Amino acid sequence: MSSEVYSYLYEKVLEEGALDIYTESIYMKKNRPSNKISILCNENDLEKFVELLLIETSTFGVRYHKYNRERLKRKFIKINTHYGDITVKLGYYKNKLIKATPEYEECKKIAKNKGIPLNQIFNIINCIINEEYKINLLT
Amino acid sequence: MSSEVYSYLYEKVLEEGALDIYTESIYMKKNRPSNKISILCNENDLEKFVELLLIETSTFGVRYHKYNRERLKRKFIKINTHYGDITVKLGYYKNKLIKATPEYEECKKIAKNKGIPLNQIFNIINCIINEEYKINLLT
Amino acid sequence: MSSEVYSYLYEKVLEEGALDIYTESIYMKKNRPSNKISILCNENDLEKFVELLLIETSTFGVRYHKYNRERLKRKFIKINTHYGDITVKLGYYKNKLIKATPEYEECKKIAKNKGIPLNQIFNIINCIINEEYKINLLT
Amino acid sequence: MSSEVYSYLYEKVLEEGALDIYTESIYMKKNRPSNKISILCNENDLEKFVELLLIETSTFGVRYHKYNRERLKRKFIKINTHYGDITVKLGYYKNKLIKATPEYEECKKIAKNKGIPLNQIFNIINCIINEEYKINLLT
Amino acid sequence: MSSEVYSYLYEKVLEEGALDIYTESIYMKKNRPSNKISILCNENDLEKFVELLLIETSTFGVRYHKYNRERLKRKFIKINTHYGDITVKLGYYKNKLIKATPEYEECKKIAKNKGIPLNQIFNIINCIINEEYKINLLT
Amino acid sequence: MSSEVYSYLYEKVLEEGALDIYTESIYMKKNRPSNKISILCNENDLEKFVELLLIETSTFGVRYHKYNRERLKRKFIKINTHYGDITVKLGYYKNKLIKATPEYEECKKIAKNKGIPLNQIFNIINCIINEEYKINLLT
Repeated sequence: MSSEVYSYLYEKVLEEGALDIYTESIYMKKNRPSNKISILCNENDLEKFVELLLIETSTFGVRYHKYNRERLKRKFIKINTHYGDITVKLGYYKNKLIKATPEYEECKKIAKNKGIPLNQIFNIINCIINEEYKINLLT
Repeated sequence: MSSEVYSYLYEKVLEEGALDIYTESIYMKKNRPSNKISILCNENDLEKFVELLLIETSTFGVRYHKYNRERLKRKFIKINTHYGDITVKLGYYKNKLIKATPEYEECKKIAKNKGIPLNQIFNIINCIINEEYKINLLT
Repeated sequence: MSSEVYSYLYEKVLEEGALDIYTESIYMKKNRPSNKISILCNENDLEKFVELLLIETSTFGVRYHKYNRERLKRKFIKINTHYGDITVKLGYYKNKLIKATPEYEECKKIAKNKGIPLNQIFNIINCIINEEYKINLLT
Repeated sequence: MSSEVYSYLYEKVLEEGALDIYTESIYMKKNRPSNKISILCNENDLEKFVELLLIETSTFGVRYHKYNRERLKRKFIKINTHYGDITVKLGYYKNKLIKATPEYEECKKIAKNKGIPLNQIFNIINCIINEEYKINLLT
Repeated sequence: MSSEVYSYLYEKVLEEGALDIYTESIYMKKNRPSNKISILCNENDLEKFVELLLIETSTFGVRYHKYNRERLKRKFIKINTHYGDITVKLGYYKNKLIKATPEYEECKKIAKNKGIPLNQIFNIINCIINEEYKINLLT
Repeated sequence: MSSEVYSYLYEKVLEEGALDIYTESIYMKKNRPSNKISILCNENDLEKFVELLLIETSTFGVRYHKYNRERLKRKFIKINTHYGDITVKLGYYKNKLIKATPEYEECKKIAKNKGIPLNQIFNIINCIINEEYKINLLT
């Protein structure tokens, strides 16, 4: 399968409502390097994604099974920085805030507009989050 | 485990009737790069392959579980090219032809005998298939 | 380094004129999985990219050296299909046409608009190319 | 997630009683290279390790499911070499001895103290094992 | 080569004064998954490491060549946190401070003693660094 | 590029006299997983292999440069086992024997004919070698 198909597949699969998609490099018989594509989706989307993989890729077979999943509850807030407001995803485990992640696409825009390294933007926002939420984060 | 054992294992596992075998590189504790071997087999061959892995590889344990699988129905035909007849595997999804793949080993022989790049042989055969089956493939 | 930085880096590096960029997963001391980033650039862009990597990534050092390179001469043509005109990149080795590749982004648009698998678009265009250029391709 | 966290995680997860831990490099949407962490644990430790992954890593979700496992029965013996006693792990399948592996950490100490390549220590011990247990190993 | 040898090799190579060591998974002829070991060392240590690889690993040949390298100038400082003093590595590019990284082993000890996630320790220290050095880091 | 081309390429490249060939999985822009092919050859074969890669694969460019190499001197001997004679490759560094490896293909034949695990054949032969050459190997 042409490597260009993967890029197209990632986009299409996410547009169709998959929860996640990733690839792993594998090695098959007869010295064939290949890629295993994994899609995580809701159970009622299963048939749709099996069909999509059979039609869009070179495979003749798709395997699937059911996983259990433990997810953090998510909440999206805006935090105020001197670069403007930035969306932050908060993650709660057993009703306790344990994680906060700034939205990548917004940080990227700032980095590009201001000419500041992206890592630094992440760092600054993490510090603001740390300051504002520290009671929850450290308890 | 010596890397030479993998080649032997691939051959042996396929001769014993496995549906597929592949490896993935993994990283274990104590900086040990290693390989995870996955075998896909019918349920009644399970014990045979568990035993084979325990005996032939350096592992002390084998994990397994059941997968569901959706496979294209397969049909093998011969198509006529000016290099001679070539076997083509057709794949049907819900009774509709959606995929056609020439047999690698036969194409390889032609490429070697005629001194033509293998990619080009694939291309030519794909065009003949496309021409002959286009009504099904594009509907 | 956050995995989100890679996506940003790929874009930035290509906008700045790199010829290519790719990553490989590597394993470092103390069980640290990491990624090696490789940039291919013209010699007079070297300092710019060394600086970019030092500033944008978490590394404290960048290695570089000179490679020789053999490249196909490239020519871009339009071919006419019943989906519209599509750009095709032709590759010449010692003045002989040996390779032809349709432009991915244009094929992707067609696949999305017409609801046809991308692999099939590639296939159809390859057949047209094969038909039109076969004298060159097979000599 | 910083690559330095993996090393810490490996140690912590094994101290907490996991049976195994390994990582695989994966590729996610938006050109993000990342790592999938897999932990093998007893069923009654499940909640502990799900919590550990949610708290210690950058992930917002953990997937899990039940595997069957076939393990060799293990017995540890001491074998006598002219470098001193070395522990060897024996593996039994259906009550038959099929595998013997010297303990890595003890061999490593000898290699370092005596200035002998580690591979050679392994080799010598394997030969002693082979000699002493050959009836079982070859039947 | 046994995967256990890698761990030993990493330790030995670093003790002998290598600047860095890492492995990459590669795939060789005859379906053999293997690992490429790369060592970065000063030129006058070359012979020592070539010999070490030939003696300690299963390889029959070692390739090497000269790289240029651009490195940040490094300075180590202590910063004061309410967990105690922590060493921070500062990186200067053209005499400007552009990077600061806390020492992993010290953070790990704190994380273990205080029962706080390692990621959080990193975060807090980064915020202190950010606060104290911001004039340099942002100019 | 179809994964089936790799197998063909490995064979062809080795038949044409390359010293080695291997692939590594890499990740390119636009979420394209791909493979980097590396060929090790003598300098006077360079043009032949550059041409082969340009013609047989989908690439539009090939990079190359010169490596230094330190190789063990090799000698092939026959050792006598109760399974018959087996070829063993000996490796000498500075005129000292430091390595001995049985030929894989011969061991594989024995393993298949006698129904003995391949790992065990390797082990037995290593012990014979160890016994016969121990003076050299351990000095």
